[in-house]
Amino acid sequence: MKTIETSSRLSSIRELIGKDLDQLRSKLLTIHPADVADVVIELPPEEEAVVFRVLPKEQASAVFSYLPLRDQQGLLKSLSSDQMLSLINDMTPDDRARLFEELPAEVTKRLMGSLSPEELKSARLLLGYPERTAGRYMTPEYIAIKPEMNAAQALEFVRKNGQGKETLNFVYLVDDEGRLVEDLRLGSLVLADPSTNVLAIKDPPLVCVQASDDRQDVLQTFSKYGRAALPVVDTDRKMLGIITVDDVLEAAELRDTEQMQRLGGMEALDEPYTRVDTWMMIRKRGGWLSALFLGEMLTATAMSFFEVEIAKAVVLALFVPLIISSGGNSGSQATSLIIRALALHDLRLRDWFRVFRREIVSGLALGTLLGAIGFLRIVLWQHLHFTNYGQHFYLIGFTVWISLIGVVTFGTLAGSMLPFILRRLGFDPATSSAPFVATLVDVTGLIIYFSVAFLILKGTLL
Amino acid sequence: MKTIETSSRLSSIRELIGKDLDQLRSKLLTIHPADVADVVIELPPEEEAVVFRVLPKEQASAVFSYLPLRDQQGLLKSLSSDQMLSLINDMTPDDRARLFEELPAEVTKRLMGSLSPEELKSARLLLGYPERTAGRYMTPEYIAIKPEMNAAQALEFVRKNGQGKETLNFVYLVDDEGRLVEDLRLGSLVLADPSTNVLAIKDPPLVCVQASDDRQDVLQTFSKYGRAALPVVDTDRKMLGIITVDDVLEAAELRDTEQMQRLGGMEALDEPYTRVDTWMMIRKRGGWLSALFLGEMLTATAMSFFEVEIAKAVVLALFVPLIISSGGNSGSQATSLIIRALALHDLRLRDWFRVFRREIVSGLALGTLLGAIGFLRIVLWQHLHFTNYGQHFYLIGFTVWISLIGVVTFGTLAGSMLPFILRRLGFDPATSSAPFVATLVDVTGLIIYFSVAFLILKGTLL
Repeated sequence: MKTIETSSRLSSIRELIGKDLDQLRSKLLTIHPADVADVVIELPPEEEAVVFRVLPKEQASAVFSYLPLRDQQGLLKSLSSDQMLSLINDMTPDDRARLFEELPAEVTKRLMGSLSPEELKSARLLLGYPERTAGRYMTPEYIAIKPEMNAAQALEFVRKNGQGKETLNFVYLVDDEGRLVEDLRLGSLVLADPSTNVLAIKDPPLVCVQASDDRQDVLQTFSKYGRAALPVVDTDRKMLGIITVDDVLEAAELRDTEQMQRLGGMEALDEPYTRVDTWMMIRKRGGWLSALFLGEMLTATAMSFFEVEIAKAVVLALFVPLIISSGGNSGSQATSLIIRALALHDLRLRDWFRVFRREIVSGLALGTLLGAIGFLRIVLWQHLHFTNYGQHFYLIGFTVWISLIGVVTFGTLAGSMLPFILRRLGFDPATSSAPFVATLVDVTGLIIYFSVAFLILKGTLL
Repeated sequence: MKTIETSSRLSSIRELIGKDLDQLRSKLLTIHPADVADVVIELPPEEEAVVFRVLPKEQASAVFSYLPLRDQQGLLKSLSSDQMLSLINDMTPDDRARLFEELPAEVTKRLMGSLSPEELKSARLLLGYPERTAGRYMTPEYIAIKPEMNAAQALEFVRKNGQGKETLNFVYLVDDEGRLVEDLRLGSLVLADPSTNVLAIKDPPLVCVQASDDRQDVLQTFSKYGRAALPVVDTDRKMLGIITVDDVLEAAELRDTEQMQRLGGMEALDEPYTRVDTWMMIRKRGGWLSALFLGEMLTATAMSFFEVEIAKAVVLALFVPLIISSGGNSGSQATSLIIRALALHDLRLRDWFRVFRREIVSGLALGTLLGAIGFLRIVLWQHLHFTNYGQHFYLIGFTVWISLIGVVTFGTLAGSMLPFILRRLGFDPATSSAPFVATLVDVTGLIIYFSVAFLILKGTLL
């Protein structure tokens, strides 16, 4: 609950920075580290450093781990190397791995050299997994107990070893070879009779993910089983670490941001809009925009085939944008629906024919609807003398109507089938689908429109 | 980890259904309820009922709560009223509230009448909150302890009262008036010295949300503080319930699905693609498609103003689709970027001018790039004799280049500013933004193109 707003906190803290560092420290200690981080982001660099200097070591690193990557990097430069090391040493290994990944290589190397051997090992371990896999999100700070223990022994073990672990909601039963045998909610452990063997405690069955599992599989496991943390194992079922809920939410948000950006016809930015510099953004947008432009050039080629018809009946040119944009809009609806359904595994590859049949029906219905509106518009404008489409306005109206049925049906089918095709070929279905469908439909739409016009208007206008 | 696939489970279970119910029961008990639910979905209705009949009461309701709403409703009809009541009584209140919401009113009424008074109260309470607020996702099954207790007493209390609660990861310190004083991780409680007063136990500060808080605020609180569960309070800070991680992931997924469908130019479907019937889907798509079509009709009006110019220089018509689609594509990129950044609070309303300046630069750069490609295409095709654009092909090339700078810059600006305007007016910025921008840019693009053509080609082609 945001009882006090960041802005009012900010001004009271800035006041204390210049005046009373003791009072500043006590004020900061009453605020949640995540909220202190919100304030720190707004401070000028020299005042940022003051906040970290007055905070006790443990709070300082908690605040640090809540800062966005860019601010962490900026701060590292303005702190003494002692302060810097203490902050980094206290970060959880998964956060640290992600920080290092973004730092210039020589800084990473210097910093890695200053980690304790244990911490170095976990940072290296985490760094070895490919992007977007479970291994990237895990932290090795969990509690493992032996399957021979009883509930009382296990609780005693948690008491002695639980300080500073990222989460205590689960304890993991790991055998002598390091294999994960069972996960046990701390709640179940507390509720159990003290003399019960931990394996016999009533608790939901084990759920775990593999380090090489894709981000999307991890997300689905989380929402399917409603767990607050999941253990990560290797192919031998050896326990490597756990993934916690904050990392999962971050992964879900990232997945959907990437999908939307791809759907919008560009490369995923990988970073928030406000943090990408303008030239990088232009590059990421320009690439796809040029590719789509090259594709769209086919419309000029297609149009040039009908140059004679356009010269004979200029009225036909008037409806070109209307016809092709309707195809594009219906394609964009279909493609965003199908991409999302594929991403959430509501649809699978094998469902393509079911979707095909369904989208034919939708396309025909929607095309007939739009065509009827278009026909009425032409007839009405003619009768109201808004525009003069000539004596054959009924034929022009029918040309628009029939073309729209064809174009919208084609747009709907192209928009719904393209994601399946991309997925089948091993690409992300979201990759630029919507604009790509629009380009495809524009070219085809022109051919449909002028062919229908040729059939209907031959002998009259053409 | 999916060690055994649903399909192989399905066949072995279907075999047992006809043969050996005891063996079926023991097999089902070894499978996680969420996985049993996956199998049940695939079974024909009469076999579904068998599975629920052989399962012990507690497992049956666990499986039931993992089923999608539609399957729950179908199953309710095929079970005896005793079995039905037992399943519903064992559901968590938040799941039950969502089930009731979707049932025909008379069935809901009959079922609500059969709940215990306590359960009825919580179901009613949950139902009273508006859609997409924290109140809709909460469950009242949490553990509240008195702030006067010490750690040992609190643990003892958890042991006695913890059975059947949705999560035990947190206990909540609630005073005599029902106000939430502090939240305490079960882990911190276990680690604490038994004689410490619970208020003195070292634990991160309280984080809570209000029942009326918007879904997006709840999501942000979850990812900001990395909690596995959050308490929900009313305006008096009285404790109402908790929200757990599965409900949060569901909310995040729903938010992004709605956003993508709106971005694709349609009403949000509210249900997965495979579960919406075709006519409902056509209605939801047809509404926006017709609205966009009506807007797009303005292109026909705009084109008719330039009918004379087109008749004089038919070559101009050839580039109409290319020009307007480039505006649409650049607008769609900008709008999907900005909508996502607004949704994740990376951008706020007050940032509009910063975005405006930045998108002007991007638009000019991208337009110059596309224009250059277009110019080269025209000159090259002319020299290679692919197409004959007449003696003034250089002028036509320049017309296309200059127009693209104007159209792409306008598209980028319209695409980036429209979400801000929609948000300012109180609408969801995602509402049909991309196609709406495309329509706006199509009409404006035509005007820009023909105006530029008029200026450059006056005296030669026009």
